[in-house]
Amino acid sequence: MPHPVKIAIAGALGRMGRQMALAAEADPRLQLVARFHRPGSAGEGLVQRDEALALADVVIDFTTPAASVDLAKACAARGGPALVIGSTGFEPAELAAIATASKSVAIVRSGSYSLGLNMLTGLVEQAARALGPDADIEILEAHHRSKVDAPSGTALMLGEAAARGRGVILDDVAKRTRDGVTGPRPVGEIGFAVLRGGSIVGEHSVSLLAEGETLTLSHSAGDRSMFARGAIAAALWVARRPPGEYDMRDVLGFA
Amino acid sequence: MPHPVKIAIAGALGRMGRQMALAAEADPRLQLVARFHRPGSAGEGLVQRDEALALADVVIDFTTPAASVDLAKACAARGGPALVIGSTGFEPAELAAIATASKSVAIVRSGSYSLGLNMLTGLVEQAARALGPDADIEILEAHHRSKVDAPSGTALMLGEAAARGRGVILDDVAKRTRDGVTGPRPVGEIGFAVLRGGSIVGEHSVSLLAEGETLTLSHSAGDRSMFARGAIAAALWVARRPPGEYDMRDVLGFA
Amino acid sequence: MPHPVKIAIAGALGRMGRQMALAAEADPRLQLVARFHRPGSAGEGLVQRDEALALADVVIDFTTPAASVDLAKACAARGGPALVIGSTGFEPAELAAIATASKSVAIVRSGSYSLGLNMLTGLVEQAARALGPDADIEILEAHHRSKVDAPSGTALMLGEAAARGRGVILDDVAKRTRDGVTGPRPVGEIGFAVLRGGSIVGEHSVSLLAEGETLTLSHSAGDRSMFARGAIAAALWVARRPPGEYDMRDVLGFA
Amino acid sequence: MPHPVKIAIAGALGRMGRQMALAAEADPRLQLVARFHRPGSAGEGLVQRDEALALADVVIDFTTPAASVDLAKACAARGGPALVIGSTGFEPAELAAIATASKSVAIVRSGSYSLGLNMLTGLVEQAARALGPDADIEILEAHHRSKVDAPSGTALMLGEAAARGRGVILDDVAKRTRDGVTGPRPVGEIGFAVLRGGSIVGEHSVSLLAEGETLTLSHSAGDRSMFARGAIAAALWVARRPPGEYDMRDVLGFA
Repeated sequence: MPHPVKIAIAGALGRMGRQMALAAEADPRLQLVARFHRPGSAGEGLVQRDEALALADVVIDFTTPAASVDLAKACAARGGPALVIGSTGFEPAELAAIATASKSVAIVRSGSYSLGLNMLTGLVEQAARALGPDADIEILEAHHRSKVDAPSGTALMLGEAAARGRGVILDDVAKRTRDGVTGPRPVGEIGFAVLRGGSIVGEHSVSLLAEGETLTLSHSAGDRSMFARGAIAAALWVARRPPGEYDMRDVLGFA
Repeated sequence: MPHPVKIAIAGALGRMGRQMALAAEADPRLQLVARFHRPGSAGEGLVQRDEALALADVVIDFTTPAASVDLAKACAARGGPALVIGSTGFEPAELAAIATASKSVAIVRSGSYSLGLNMLTGLVEQAARALGPDADIEILEAHHRSKVDAPSGTALMLGEAAARGRGVILDDVAKRTRDGVTGPRPVGEIGFAVLRGGSIVGEHSVSLLAEGETLTLSHSAGDRSMFARGAIAAALWVARRPPGEYDMRDVLGFA
Repeated sequence: MPHPVKIAIAGALGRMGRQMALAAEADPRLQLVARFHRPGSAGEGLVQRDEALALADVVIDFTTPAASVDLAKACAARGGPALVIGSTGFEPAELAAIATASKSVAIVRSGSYSLGLNMLTGLVEQAARALGPDADIEILEAHHRSKVDAPSGTALMLGEAAARGRGVILDDVAKRTRDGVTGPRPVGEIGFAVLRGGSIVGEHSVSLLAEGETLTLSHSAGDRSMFARGAIAAALWVARRPPGEYDMRDVLGFA
Repeated sequence: MPHPVKIAIAGALGRMGRQMALAAEADPRLQLVARFHRPGSAGEGLVQRDEALALADVVIDFTTPAASVDLAKACAARGGPALVIGSTGFEPAELAAIATASKSVAIVRSGSYSLGLNMLTGLVEQAARALGPDADIEILEAHHRSKVDAPSGTALMLGEAAARGRGVILDDVAKRTRDGVTGPRPVGEIGFAVLRGGSIVGEHSVSLLAEGETLTLSHSAGDRSMFARGAIAAALWVARRPPGEYDMRDVLGFA
């Protein structure tokens, strides 16, 4: 049994920070050594950031782009700990700063830490590449009645993975709706279909339909705990990794 | 064990006529007593129509509207046999002639003899009525890559059943596509989604999505033999029925 | 717009009582007029039982068999309000007392208030009856990794509904496992299959598989709020009903 | 547009040989240059084997182990053409002879040429490896009512792929049935579930169920044409490959 990986949590008073703390405490492979929030925050058990950095192997950070950049710089300056960044909405200059920091410390950054959805995305790209245009690709997503856009961002991300596997640009082949007299399905099209209703958290499926057989790869989300689990998997993976910028595809072993 | 029902097959040289003969011969509850085709047709084992009518309890007829009307009149004039009509594309005057004939003989007529799809349609109407507008209704269909229209006629038929169950008109509540910023799903909407690819014969599902639970009723077609099976079920049902015009909902016991 | 139905909640300090209060307050068709708990309980806004009975059109009661029987007797003695009982584990004598009370007031009682599962059960019985033994019936259920028994009680309940539709006894036709050389599937068998894993709340599907087509009726539970919704539907339905003992099949309009 | 690959078909009078000829003629990437059967066979358009070998880039061979070994030796002696072997039931000595032949010519050999099922198997192994024991693995298969064994060979093959991904032996972790009081699901178990009914050609799905999310990889077979399609994909892939023994994992790009 290896030593548990020492984890610090940034943004510890935020929703995701609290959820991360619960998940980290429940996992014997981790030891939660520090929680911190922005300077001046008061809360039971909080420490200062630099104290946390001195204790941890990995910091898990779901905060804001600016806070994440500051944190990455501080870790880089100290030569550690490693980072798992889940903040979203970075500007190009902020991304550049993180890339620079990743020359000194290992950083995983992803827009979504669902292991399942990242896995699905990798498998879809691979299947689309291997099966080629003989297999028609169709993407179906279902979400709760309050969702205000369609198709979901994740469905489009899956479409991009499929297009990448095929070596085409999604916008050139996407068929976002079908209604009325459509004619036969063109070879190479990537189709989307959308269901809305109830309180469905999120379901996505990608079908590759050939003559006589169908391969379907799908994901169903039950609740948001999956993001905390994925961040923990990333932390365990990155703990002893050399400096560099990584994403969930690396964590999952897609090369 | 009751006596097997004596069946004659009209249009015996047509694709459906041949399939019906195979299906009837394989079923111990039936006895295939005669096959006939339009006057002047030659084929092994064919008899004249009037000879067939004298032998049969039920005639199964997948031919043309004109031929079906003639047949219905002949059966009515003789006071039997009963009829199962699968021809489609009737004009109002032809339907009126069949209605008149049905005062003297029992006639089942349906645009689709799939037991499963007729069952699905009845269940959808019932579920839509019982669950009311708290349950969002979404209809998904998938067909092979050569299908040229969307949504499928069957999907629209299911939508009409759902609307009927709700006491609304489908055209008033149908949402046939969703793309871009749609806003939250309006209460009462009936949504459609379409998948196309491979060689899928036909899949339909109707979901009733409420807060915290989803009920899904679905049908998958493997091949066209289901239509012959449904026609046989109709023939067995109608064999000893009083004169009247019936459809598959009657055969399946929906009132 | 009719007057909202006046609701009182028994067992108001219990988990289900609290959830019912939230659900009732969110629903404009209801007016939550009183909450009570067992005599001697203290809690903000609680009233005495008899005060609650004087105010309400319907009492929703998820408590214990003994408490439910007392409540039913009290309602019967006063000639109202109507009752929705969700307690489980009644003894025969307790059921008899409730039956007696139902001569004076309308009582809905059910072991499960999920509208979707009750709907599914009714549809399964109906489809099994209409499609007959030509359609092979298979029941699949999936639950989280902590569930300790198989098949689920709900799967068995669905099997009983299917058997009832067929006019047979489930125990005579149930096939609970298949492993090794099974031989061809006997006509009339009702098969069960079980999946366990992750945090799945509960999924059930009943397939009726015929030559060339499959009808599948399925239910997916997302969370336990569905039980509160079903109890509210029952309360709305029973509010102006004549005395009698009802269950969710009556609420859903299965006769 | 490259020159079409020149194909010869062995066992041309067999069921698979006929189906291969139809599939090859329909595909513009191939040119069907010769069909042959065992010596002494008579049939329109048949040639002798050695004539066929002189014309073809690739021979597709669904015959018998003995005939396939002879063919492999003849191709090796001539230094080509390449081979796609779909015969099954080889003895160890026959496999050794094919391995020897593969030092001189490129040979693809597989027990199943379904692209979709081979793809599924590769993806399952990969997902099982990446997601680790946090994800519970469950395998569900459905087949027609005449199938006499359970679970299907393909389901067991998928179980072995999942076990390989986990680094365990399937027999050590397989849970083939669940009935009665099972207790909570042990970590690491690979579960099987079986459905039988109707005329389902073959459906397989592998679910990886974690806390809060489920990834499901599934395959549905519509008819047997998928095997001809896979053999053609193998022929196109192997046509210009160096000598060696390959399987469908190589064709699909799994390394």
